[in-house]
Amino acid sequence: MIHNDTIVALATPSGNGAIAVIRLSGKDAISVADGSFKSVKKQKSLITQKTHTIHLGHILDNERTIDEVLVSVFKNPNSYTGEDVVEISCHGSIYIQQEIIQLFLRKGCRMATAGEFTLRAFLNGKLDLSQAEAVADLISSDNEASHQIAMQQMRGGFSSEIAKLREELMNFASLIELELDFAEEDVEFADRTQFKELIERINFVLKRLIDSFAVGNVIKNGIPVAIVGEPNVGKSTLLNALLNEDRAIVSEIAGTTRDTIEDEISIGGIGFRFIDTAGIRETEDVIESIGIKKTFEKIEQAQVVMFLVSSAQLAVGDEAVNTISIEIEKIKNKFPQKQLLIILNKIDQITDSELANITSALYSKTSSLIPISAKTGSGVDQLTNELLDLINTGALRNNETIVTNSRHYDALLKAFEEIQSVQHGLETGLSGDLLAIDIRQALYHFGEITGEITNDDLLGNIFANFCIGK
Amino acid sequence: MIHNDTIVALATPSGNGAIAVIRLSGKDAISVADGSFKSVKKQKSLITQKTHTIHLGHILDNERTIDEVLVSVFKNPNSYTGEDVVEISCHGSIYIQQEIIQLFLRKGCRMATAGEFTLRAFLNGKLDLSQAEAVADLISSDNEASHQIAMQQMRGGFSSEIAKLREELMNFASLIELELDFAEEDVEFADRTQFKELIERINFVLKRLIDSFAVGNVIKNGIPVAIVGEPNVGKSTLLNALLNEDRAIVSEIAGTTRDTIEDEISIGGIGFRFIDTAGIRETEDVIESIGIKKTFEKIEQAQVVMFLVSSAQLAVGDEAVNTISIEIEKIKNKFPQKQLLIILNKIDQITDSELANITSALYSKTSSLIPISAKTGSGVDQLTNELLDLINTGALRNNETIVTNSRHYDALLKAFEEIQSVQHGLETGLSGDLLAIDIRQALYHFGEITGEITNDDLLGNIFANFCIGK
Repeated sequence: MIHNDTIVALATPSGNGAIAVIRLSGKDAISVADGSFKSVKKQKSLITQKTHTIHLGHILDNERTIDEVLVSVFKNPNSYTGEDVVEISCHGSIYIQQEIIQLFLRKGCRMATAGEFTLRAFLNGKLDLSQAEAVADLISSDNEASHQIAMQQMRGGFSSEIAKLREELMNFASLIELELDFAEEDVEFADRTQFKELIERINFVLKRLIDSFAVGNVIKNGIPVAIVGEPNVGKSTLLNALLNEDRAIVSEIAGTTRDTIEDEISIGGIGFRFIDTAGIRETEDVIESIGIKKTFEKIEQAQVVMFLVSSAQLAVGDEAVNTISIEIEKIKNKFPQKQLLIILNKIDQITDSELANITSALYSKTSSLIPISAKTGSGVDQLTNELLDLINTGALRNNETIVTNSRHYDALLKAFEEIQSVQHGLETGLSGDLLAIDIRQALYHFGEITGEITNDDLLGNIFANFCIGK
Repeated sequence: MIHNDTIVALATPSGNGAIAVIRLSGKDAISVADGSFKSVKKQKSLITQKTHTIHLGHILDNERTIDEVLVSVFKNPNSYTGEDVVEISCHGSIYIQQEIIQLFLRKGCRMATAGEFTLRAFLNGKLDLSQAEAVADLISSDNEASHQIAMQQMRGGFSSEIAKLREELMNFASLIELELDFAEEDVEFADRTQFKELIERINFVLKRLIDSFAVGNVIKNGIPVAIVGEPNVGKSTLLNALLNEDRAIVSEIAGTTRDTIEDEISIGGIGFRFIDTAGIRETEDVIESIGIKKTFEKIEQAQVVMFLVSSAQLAVGDEAVNTISIEIEKIKNKFPQKQLLIILNKIDQITDSELANITSALYSKTSSLIPISAKTGSGVDQLTNELLDLINTGALRNNETIVTNSRHYDALLKAFEEIQSVQHGLETGLSGDLLAIDIRQALYHFGEITGEITNDDLLGNIFANFCIGK
């Protein structure tokens, strides 16, 4: 990959808006922009301006004025890419955006490929690879938790933890390789006790990072929750209640009421993916049996099962309570590993004594029950808390590094394997030259994460997932 | 309308992208932004920064980092609105955009209403009203001609023409009103000969501006072109050929091939709205008669009629040519005022001698014929030129002021009426006090255009058509 050319792309979302930003990066960025720019202040050239300054003027195609714009100048290395960067803030018309981009293409710039600005930032040492990957995660994160993890990773939290271990391991690797040069003299430059301690420490950190992927993955992709409940038990109303609980202010900005149940919503800053299922009422009907099979398949995909029943249905008597209890029991037996929440909805439609009766009857069978009214909002707080308690957010709260990227996870698993080999080698007194091979392998996998070890294919894959203009 | 508060809005199109820009304007814009901003350079406050500078740092909600951002500072009066303005360039995630906007709402900002930034620019004297209106036109213009007119208007071409006339007229009004104070002395401060000359000049300019609306309106809204042609004569292929002719580079950026014929496309920088019609073949069939009625209704809406026939159909003999000639004649007779282009398509499918025969047979009946092959592109250049020749683009080419806004057109018509009264009054020796009333009325209508005369309802109507953030 050669990066001597100057690239251009629209950096803001496509479409009409108040303003749009067109970004240029490369050695000719400032001179190309200057060639088509006429400042409102006479005789002002962009080339002689200081970095991080903004200039009002017009973009001209020969004599024709394309737009009145603000031009921001960033001089290398003080820019996003580390190269000279110009950002042109123009009126947000698609016509103007295209005219300006085409003008710069004619002046010798090239359309940036997906993620190419960030790729250049990586190649110029402004970001390491895991930080660059976090930029894409940050843009796609749509709730507080995934945003927090991406932000931490982008700010280098994850990289610095890996880099520290890598450096310590590298020191020992050097010492052990030095021993090989003096093999005939039988010296030990690397203190084996200290080395064992380091390997144990690395083992511990790697294990924690690898374990964090379980949480990181659900936070990144949303926690799958199956809602078991027949029509009219209030599933949509419940989801909107949970949504409004969390998004009271957001809804002022954009309508957020959902009509479908199969959707992802953010509760307490965590994304939950809701999966709608029918009930699993006992039946001999063939068609309904197929329905139950489908319900079970959907529960299989979930981490949490919310079993929603309507108070009004249960108020009719013991038989109704028994039917529900049997259904609940069946799910418990079939999915012992799933986290189950029994929710009694529509408590505003029954009397207090009816509620007491249902609660005691059902509680004796289920030993867990959350009475709510999705309509009035009563009990929704408690449900929110119980949902969040099901997720191990300790690491998140403690601001620990959490792994969300499966490429990093794979590399960590491989590094862990190599470190185990090193540990085994140390215990069995493996010779230095063989030990050094395992250590180099572990270092290789660490380097894959931060991008010290890389290749064009890998970079191509990573940055292809970016949008153009980033 | 009171504008003591600080407003905030997303200025870039909504949706995920590489970056998004959030704009604040008002007396607290810089201090509010500063309160949530931590520069990468220690101890750096936005408040003490120079105007038109950019600062890298983080937006914090208490301890929580929302994003790494670039903050641009504009100090009043050197900003778009004329107030203190801050633009925050953040990562283009919807979550981050909302978090930052909500943070500033909590810090005392208010969501901007549609067009409120431009409204403030107008109220603070940065733009006059016709320039403000041109901002919205500029954003919605999607071809070179409408873009050029909006740009000229935004840069004040139209306003300065009106303002100049208004000033001269105002001088005379003052002199005539001064005469009224000395009514008993029967003096004439205002030279009636010079005044008549001015009124004639104003009449001339107003008439030109009013006439320009006919061109301005079609340029702004697109020129309606009815395509008369049966299925399979190649209407879609022709439109794509015209489109590609004009947009060879654009199509690299976004796919531009159209499937429907009823669409607007830009040809030679002018927008054309194509209206699909069936043919008008002679028939006794009732249903087909209804079809012909519809075709006529559609032709009625058009300014240009493109009559498209397929060479292959005409190659069969004289009878086919006669049928077509009768159809053409019928349209000519029914719509003598419409501009008619007869297009012979698919000339690649016939031999040169067949083409010569058809051309001579048809030309004798129609006295105008453009032979093309939409498929190979042959003749499309000539068609493009003929289409553009139909539009009186002289004013556009000569960079004259063109009126596109119907509000301006109405005000110009009213001013013209008043100026005619003044002229009549001058000729009939109307008394100064009555003359002054007509002059004041004309001045009022001039003032409506540029916004010296305005009211909240009018401003509300104008800026409601803007997007939020502009």
